[in-house]
Amino acid sequence: MQATQEPPLVRAARKERVERTPVWFMRQAGRVLPEYRQIRTSHSLLDICRQADLAATVTLQPVERFDVDAAIIFADIITPLLGVGLKVDIVEKVGPVLDEPIRSRADLARLRCLEPEQDLPAMLEALRLVRNALPDEKALIGFAGAPFTLATYLIEGGPSKNYTTTKSLMYSQPDFWHELMTRLSDMIAAYLLAQASAGAQVLQLFDSWVGWLSQRDYCEYVFPYTARIIKAAQTSGVPVIHFATGAGALNGAIMQAAPDVVGLDWRVPLDESWAALGDVAVQGNLDPAVLLAPADVVRDQTRDVMRRAAGRPGHIFNLGHGFLPQTPLDSIFQVIECVREWNGSVGS
Amino acid sequence: MQATQEPPLVRAARKERVERTPVWFMRQAGRVLPEYRQIRTSHSLLDICRQADLAATVTLQPVERFDVDAAIIFADIITPLLGVGLKVDIVEKVGPVLDEPIRSRADLARLRCLEPEQDLPAMLEALRLVRNALPDEKALIGFAGAPFTLATYLIEGGPSKNYTTTKSLMYSQPDFWHELMTRLSDMIAAYLLAQASAGAQVLQLFDSWVGWLSQRDYCEYVFPYTARIIKAAQTSGVPVIHFATGAGALNGAIMQAAPDVVGLDWRVPLDESWAALGDVAVQGNLDPAVLLAPADVVRDQTRDVMRRAAGRPGHIFNLGHGFLPQTPLDSIFQVIECVREWNGSVGS
Repeated sequence: MQATQEPPLVRAARKERVERTPVWFMRQAGRVLPEYRQIRTSHSLLDICRQADLAATVTLQPVERFDVDAAIIFADIITPLLGVGLKVDIVEKVGPVLDEPIRSRADLARLRCLEPEQDLPAMLEALRLVRNALPDEKALIGFAGAPFTLATYLIEGGPSKNYTTTKSLMYSQPDFWHELMTRLSDMIAAYLLAQASAGAQVLQLFDSWVGWLSQRDYCEYVFPYTARIIKAAQTSGVPVIHFATGAGALNGAIMQAAPDVVGLDWRVPLDESWAALGDVAVQGNLDPAVLLAPADVVRDQTRDVMRRAAGRPGHIFNLGHGFLPQTPLDSIFQVIECVREWNGSVGS
Repeated sequence: MQATQEPPLVRAARKERVERTPVWFMRQAGRVLPEYRQIRTSHSLLDICRQADLAATVTLQPVERFDVDAAIIFADIITPLLGVGLKVDIVEKVGPVLDEPIRSRADLARLRCLEPEQDLPAMLEALRLVRNALPDEKALIGFAGAPFTLATYLIEGGPSKNYTTTKSLMYSQPDFWHELMTRLSDMIAAYLLAQASAGAQVLQLFDSWVGWLSQRDYCEYVFPYTARIIKAAQTSGVPVIHFATGAGALNGAIMQAAPDVVGLDWRVPLDESWAALGDVAVQGNLDPAVLLAPADVVRDQTRDVMRRAAGRPGHIFNLGHGFLPQTPLDSIFQVIECVREWNGSVGS
């Protein structure tokens, strides 16, 4: 293969100085796009994930529509769980629901090793299709849910409000907990490495619910697994983004896991958090709800994020969480235009 | 009135050194107690709030059962809203639900001024009954939901996941927003002052959902109201606790509102947060889910909070949020015993 320069987003993730701030959006592929909703009229979400050509099409839609700097592979957080044969469904307006929760060591037998090439051929094929279709300057992002977040679904049997069953088991059956987290970590590491082999140039590990843990519990029950997965994923040579929601108090610990990029949610001011984190790239962090506001608020708040990033190498623009379902396309265009104008005004 | 020394919890709230760390629990009056559930078999939650003798009984139950250092008046976050005649119901396993949400300036006419003595006689009478029944060394706490949290219920019409309607209105109709927050702030200030007149010796302002705002939006859309309410409540002479959930990133701003005590949720380490806050009393901050753990974990984590507080004047022990419904009484006794043992061991 000819040695071409990596896409700007990948270089930003390595803290290299790039011409303009790369932009992508969590949940950019999916429900905010009419062309996606059109496909959904005849295919379920999991149908799309199971068909490489459809998954590739949906993955490419936001790049075509918005000219964002990256595609993120269309998959669900439960994709690797389905890969090892667990019975999980995505229930509309609820989320992932398990037939039988995993709450004991005996249940763990159902969580066998993931063999990505055998278990997830469609997803890996979709990555290859997207990589071939994407222009060189666009990055392809792979991702996985982090083990704490997956563990909450497996233990609670679905979405939860306070994760009380998860925490109870964590406190009362530490052997079970650590075995579950070990199995999930092995699964996730294999899953991320397979995505890198299939063409992903950045990997994002996202922990939706870990912000419900105290710093102390995070360090004891979760951190070793986060660190292990990031280290394993980095052996692929691609940079790793760690994103967690509501986890401002965990950032110091997360830094010890040595991700290349720390994703910040919207609750924390990007400048203060970046200063506290130190020498790392950061991603974020506009409140997704701002995109429901009038254009002047959208532009003002987008510029505020750019002002806080201050053009330092290593900033990847994103929201502080995924698109809300009702996000108007106009707002998305406003945000992108604003980021690019800012770069232009600073560069000139 | 004879000049007796204030209860230890009140003195701790004033950062005075007290003999032992005062302990109380958010949601201590209510569903974790069998004697409360017994009353609930024949009375709804709002029935209890409407009958001064019942409300007083329920308020005193945890003091009698646990010998905690304070009673907190039994009331609901919607009590002042009911006082001004809004139609709100508490739906089991859902929360407060409004017949008609408030989403326009025209709707604001329904939010008239609160006249506590006329509008909430039972609640104020309950405070007087409790104050008379409580031993001198026990504090009586009054409380109110903060305007952002109340605004989310009024606008969304009930509990919400992302507060998108609230945020949309905040961004798109700032005049409406500020008028709504002004009216709510006047209501809450009057409500807190009336509670102090009726015998409350500490006032807690709690903001359950403000942690979903960015620091920037908090400062613009919420902070002025928080500051105004705290200042008004402090004219009563009683100390004011500010508690917000998931609001670690807002603590610097909250300090500017000058509460006497900052309540910390369990996500942040008490020692680090206290150091960052500076010269203020703190309340907290054990994860309520820890009380679902085996006794050794309960004791270990309770001691960890005490170790972080390090006996500095101004610590009030509490959880980092309210009791979970399934909390075993045994765990509550373990926590209290541990706090008092710690004081004993340090004092000796």
